[in-house]
Amino acid sequence: MRILSECANNLLGQSMFQLLSKARNLEKEGKRIIHYEIGDPNFLSPYIAKHKLIEAVNEDKTHYTSSSGEPGFIESIRHYCNRLYNFLPEKNQIIVAPANALIDFICRCVANKGDSIIYPDPGFVTYHSVIKYNGFFALPVILKESNDFRMSPVDIREQMKKSNETRLIIINSSHNPTGSIMTEGDIKEIYDIAEEYDIYILSDEVYSRIVYDGKFFSPGVYDKCMERTIMLHSMSKTYSMSGWRCGFAIGPRKIVEKLDLMVQTILSCCPPFIQMGAGVLLNDDTDLVNDRISILKERRGLLINGLNSLRGIKCMIPPGSFYAFPNIQNTKMFSDEYCQKLLDCTGVCVLPGNCFGSGGEGYARLCYASVTADEIRESLEKMRIFHDTSF
Amino acid sequence: MRILSECANNLLGQSMFQLLSKARNLEKEGKRIIHYEIGDPNFLSPYIAKHKLIEAVNEDKTHYTSSSGEPGFIESIRHYCNRLYNFLPEKNQIIVAPANALIDFICRCVANKGDSIIYPDPGFVTYHSVIKYNGFFALPVILKESNDFRMSPVDIREQMKKSNETRLIIINSSHNPTGSIMTEGDIKEIYDIAEEYDIYILSDEVYSRIVYDGKFFSPGVYDKCMERTIMLHSMSKTYSMSGWRCGFAIGPRKIVEKLDLMVQTILSCCPPFIQMGAGVLLNDDTDLVNDRISILKERRGLLINGLNSLRGIKCMIPPGSFYAFPNIQNTKMFSDEYCQKLLDCTGVCVLPGNCFGSGGEGYARLCYASVTADEIRESLEKMRIFHDTSF
Repeated sequence: MRILSECANNLLGQSMFQLLSKARNLEKEGKRIIHYEIGDPNFLSPYIAKHKLIEAVNEDKTHYTSSSGEPGFIESIRHYCNRLYNFLPEKNQIIVAPANALIDFICRCVANKGDSIIYPDPGFVTYHSVIKYNGFFALPVILKESNDFRMSPVDIREQMKKSNETRLIIINSSHNPTGSIMTEGDIKEIYDIAEEYDIYILSDEVYSRIVYDGKFFSPGVYDKCMERTIMLHSMSKTYSMSGWRCGFAIGPRKIVEKLDLMVQTILSCCPPFIQMGAGVLLNDDTDLVNDRISILKERRGLLINGLNSLRGIKCMIPPGSFYAFPNIQNTKMFSDEYCQKLLDCTGVCVLPGNCFGSGGEGYARLCYASVTADEIRESLEKMRIFHDTSF
Repeated sequence: MRILSECANNLLGQSMFQLLSKARNLEKEGKRIIHYEIGDPNFLSPYIAKHKLIEAVNEDKTHYTSSSGEPGFIESIRHYCNRLYNFLPEKNQIIVAPANALIDFICRCVANKGDSIIYPDPGFVTYHSVIKYNGFFALPVILKESNDFRMSPVDIREQMKKSNETRLIIINSSHNPTGSIMTEGDIKEIYDIAEEYDIYILSDEVYSRIVYDGKFFSPGVYDKCMERTIMLHSMSKTYSMSGWRCGFAIGPRKIVEKLDLMVQTILSCCPPFIQMGAGVLLNDDTDLVNDRISILKERRGLLINGLNSLRGIKCMIPPGSFYAFPNIQNTKMFSDEYCQKLLDCTGVCVLPGNCFGSGGEGYARLCYASVTADEIRESLEKMRIFHDTSF
């Protein structure tokens, strides 16, 4: 028998795909579906980025480039970092690749099989998938609604006692799927823990620009990403460029050197014309980002108010990212059952909170970046009937 | 101390980079360098592909797409396969990703740490890099000049005796770096070995379209990629699209399903506009490929004749790919020393054969796709003086 590897057998099919395929089938049958399920903004990729990409293709920038990144894009990233975080990283602290790939590469560069990784639960599914298929030991930190879904330094300490070989703490602010933002105090405490144990922090800052209330804070400012902090960024969410597959990390030279070898071995490089298109945004995005955030903020208000007026739901006002994470426990349904029934009865497609880890059971995730204000109104009407009559 | 993982410590810096950086520095100093070192054709990416990519970007095909591949691109691949191999694979036998990434993902899906993988030596550096950093056991099969650098089924059998856990045979025809083409008889014997041991074959067919003499043959025709053959293709070499980072594999459903999960976890998807651009080529490329092959054939004639007229060199006429792999043993220099001196004395940059494995010691690799006919003539004149006077 041609057997497959342990790694292959531990790859996770994302449990949400069953629901997504059901939604697609219903849509094919002519049923109206409102899509809250994918974390992909319905804005267009910015014109200036598309324009620059096209210019680069027309100039035949279509061959191999440096594995760490296009020199021009690297420069843009340095100054982007300086603008946002007030320090200018060295060129060799930067690596360009899709953010998902970087999560995988970073974990594999710092942890051996069996070593532990701390991460938020609920959290971005890739953390758990990467930990599982590589055979790392998962140390999820459950985010509590009572703590506004913020990852608690105290809980991190508790989890770390369970392993002698914790190699990495993954944090994510603004947070997917809850929309929480970590406080400066918590970030400092987590940085201190990482320093005490002398381990790395992966700060997933993919949603860090999308903040409505309060202020985002990065642990990168403590060590300028020279010692232990690796900041992860992506073009996908901030700029609605999910199909470009372009992200970057800023971190200690020692690890970035290894990430570069991993990119060389596995990806060769990120397409040069994509980096050239992406680069123009990093230099000048204030209006664009502000405009989109004000639209998202409007949708957020509409959705959260609506959800909180429904029987059986209560929903924290999420200060960041573009997800609502309502508590549905008073419906007396598990997340899966709730989402299945909601889809069947109303055509509103939302994801079960437990897709994001066991800590998400009893919740659902709604991405309000992928729907219009009208769709939010329409879905709330349909949900109102469902919530009034179905349990 | 923040330690790095075993995997990170086993990542290979490609030994060629030292030479490449020296060449770049010499060039900066104003020295004329002729570049034979990179396997990247100096043709433009085809106009129709660029045009279609630009159209797709203008139509805002810039968001997530299916992890296995764009439906339209998958269809093109099916018919491409039918045209070249006379069988029509199922949709779920196909996965789209950069070819390098697929080599890594395939190895990791079939082999556990410590399991053995058979591969050609000299061979594409990624095979060895992937085997090494993942902790697989390397079973290189030395390619002998006396056998026209063809991978011998007898030698494969010999190597397989060294391990009880061989999981994969990697073959590559046309071959990088030697330009050899495997015979139908050898392919059949290797397929039989794989069947006997019930293991997978990864047939790297990235250069399979680039054939001057003889005929390329794929093991995929024996099982229509349903049982054990995984055929690997890329847009980079055939179409001069190295910066697009777009390749695909056709293989058994059971393994393609796992590769799809791996793409989902690590890469999400290949950019849709890239796939749309690439797709138009697969449907209609006969003239384009033929034209480029006739140019390459001319360069090949010029280079091989010239090399064979130099003192201390003999070079097989390579029937495929776009590399010359001259034997330089009569110069009494090791490959590294030869290439360093050649670069210093003449500005001609070629790669040491041992970059491609220990079986490449005593040889050098020259990519004649990346130079013009005039550059070939100029370099041969310079090399003639070097070979007449330097040893």
